Amino acid sequence: MRPPLPQLVPDSCRGVGTARGAGRSRGRPAARGDGVTPGGERRAFHDFVAGHQRFLLTTHVNPDGDGLGSEVAVALWLRGLRKSAHALNDSLVPEAYLFLTRDVTAEAFEASLAERRFAECDAVIVLDTSNRQRVGRLAPLLDRFPLPIAVVDHHVSHVHGFGQVNVIEPDASSTGEIVYDLIRESGATLTPAMAEALYVALMTDTGSFRYSNTDSHAHRMAAELLSHGLDPQRIHAQVHSHASAGRLRFFGEVLSRLELMDGGRMAVMEAAPEQFQRHGLTGADTEGLVDMPRNIAGVDVVALFSEVEPGKVKVSLRSTGRISIDQVCAALGGGGHPHAAGVLLRGTRADARARILPELSRRIESPAIG
Amino acid sequence: MRPPLPQLVPDSCRGVGTARGAGRSRGRPAARGDGVTPGGERRAFHDFVAGHQRFLLTTHVNPDGDGLGSEVAVALWLRGLRKSAHALNDSLVPEAYLFLTRDVTAEAFEASLAERRFAECDAVIVLDTSNRQRVGRLAPLLDRFPLPIAVVDHHVSHVHGFGQVNVIEPDASSTGEIVYDLIRESGATLTPAMAEALYVALMTDTGSFRYSNTDSHAHRMAAELLSHGLDPQRIHAQVHSHASAGRLRFFGEVLSRLELMDGGRMAVMEAAPEQFQRHGLTGADTEGLVDMPRNIAGVDVVALFSEVEPGKVKVSLRSTGRISIDQVCAALGGGGHPHAAGVLLRGTRADARARILPELSRRIESPAIG
Repeated sequence: MRPPLPQLVPDSCRGVGTARGAGRSRGRPAARGDGVTPGGERRAFHDFVAGHQRFLLTTHVNPDGDGLGSEVAVALWLRGLRKSAHALNDSLVPEAYLFLTRDVTAEAFEASLAERRFAECDAVIVLDTSNRQRVGRLAPLLDRFPLPIAVVDHHVSHVHGFGQVNVIEPDASSTGEIVYDLIRESGATLTPAMAEALYVALMTDTGSFRYSNTDSHAHRMAAELLSHGLDPQRIHAQVHSHASAGRLRFFGEVLSRLELMDGGRMAVMEAAPEQFQRHGLTGADTEGLVDMPRNIAGVDVVALFSEVEPGKVKVSLRSTGRISIDQVCAALGGGGHPHAAGVLLRGTRADARARILPELSRRIESPAIG
Repeated sequence: MRPPLPQLVPDSCRGVGTARGAGRSRGRPAARGDGVTPGGERRAFHDFVAGHQRFLLTTHVNPDGDGLGSEVAVALWLRGLRKSAHALNDSLVPEAYLFLTRDVTAEAFEASLAERRFAECDAVIVLDTSNRQRVGRLAPLLDRFPLPIAVVDHHVSHVHGFGQVNVIEPDASSTGEIVYDLIRESGATLTPAMAEALYVALMTDTGSFRYSNTDSHAHRMAAELLSHGLDPQRIHAQVHSHASAGRLRFFGEVLSRLELMDGGRMAVMEAAPEQFQRHGLTGADTEGLVDMPRNIAGVDVVALFSEVEPGKVKVSLRSTGRISIDQVCAALGGGGHPHAAGVLLRGTRADARARILPELSRRIESPAIG
């Protein structure tokens, strides 16, 4: 059983709500790849790399640009050290990121393949999640095979990690930023392919350098990555140009019926099962839709009720910052972050609205409600 | 009479189509603000600043983030040198940029005010355009008052400028990037307010570091600007959170009827006069709409026919890169750039489609057509 959260809250939302630089002076090693000696966990990571030869890399279910970009960069780095590195994930590589996997194939879980990959390797590196369950169908294999594990992640949850080594730095914009530091600390030379993978990790997790997790270090990293001859426009097009006309028409239909409530502070949208069917879409195709009304002046919270199939409503919530909405979802069995959360509910859209909207209204009136 | 182009093609589109780094080694001074001696025109600009005391700053009609951000940064820099600096533009500051003008008021053209400002100053600095007509109603005053003029711009057109000094560097991502170099060359200290204004200039003209004009220098500049305590998420919200629910519903209606033609290579949208009226919108409110179908896989060109009022059709075209569309508009009296162009046509939407779509189809079939 996979947890319901991954499909509801894109992993790239994680960390968005972190106050800029909050705790960076405490939480991150002094080094930050700027030539200073790496901190303790980073040193342990370098020892981990030095001490093993055949690596299995993985990332969370429904992998995003940060997970895949980090995986590709680490694989290329390890291969440059004349070690072997295979990437194996629970899920297929989304079409948007296939261009990254020219040289490093990121395989999708298949029982016998996974057995073989686990048997072949002598160490595992888990990237972009420090939650053991988030590696999906690989989790039971981590239990069965007594392999040493290193975790590299920037997410706030599970700060202790489940590896022998845990480089978990919540102040980093992205796992790619930590990987970049680690590669530089190691003295290895970045290749254009590594730079491209790390750029994808960085730019997707910072919302193209827009989110509060973007700081000077992230921009200096981008400056160095671009110096390897990357064309940001081409990379952005590769990542983002996978929409279909049907998806855009569906977005249009939903947006055209946008409701404003609570004096303009809450924007509400609904999608009906017949709309998903007519345009040939799934729940995953709503990605990005709930973010669009965030730009409406005065809006504090956005709610999207997607009845993907009759009686099954995917609720996606966004906050523009004044109020936290994760606990609304957590109370119903979902999860997320203060600014982006979701939950899957049984019943009609009307049922889901009745459970969610009053809770949001209460928070809009009293932002202090947890 | 104002030229029709400004309302049709946002100035921020300019330069988007420039190949990354093309000619940079030739076109830009070696310095780029990195401590080397500035090139000839930059030196002349510093002499220009040193030689005058009371400056009038202006930028193009319908000012954007780059024009206004550059204006505010230069005004604060000059005031730090104990000189006077007034900003006067043809147009009002758009709501999105009002937050920049806390300390530096950017006044809008009014005949007697303009007379006074021109009489008071002893030099003019024109930012973000090297086309004399693009300063709108200030142009006749530039003729009447025999004032020394300095031009700072990054646009490709009018490379020779009309000033005594012309710092025109088409390889720069933005005028703000040139202003940043000039300020650093001068040895002046950046203040947080100057950093914020320059960040807005940079991030708006690079499409948040997405366009091909973004290079390592732009990211290094962003790294330094953010070190002054800027919060990118807050600034992006200030610039972008001015949508109305009506505008988003209007976008939705138009998108929901998106047409694909020419085997999926051309996306076409229409907006009717009654839609503008019903949502209380003007032609300017379509900004951003024509860009949305660019993400559809396989689309080469997007056309939006906005019948803002009956018999008046604003045509907005975008190319995703394979074909150039500016000459389609130029042939009908409009203008623009290879990737973003527009023209205002009299007649019905059907008339406008009949004139534009066959031309686009011809180019899709034979990209070489100029």
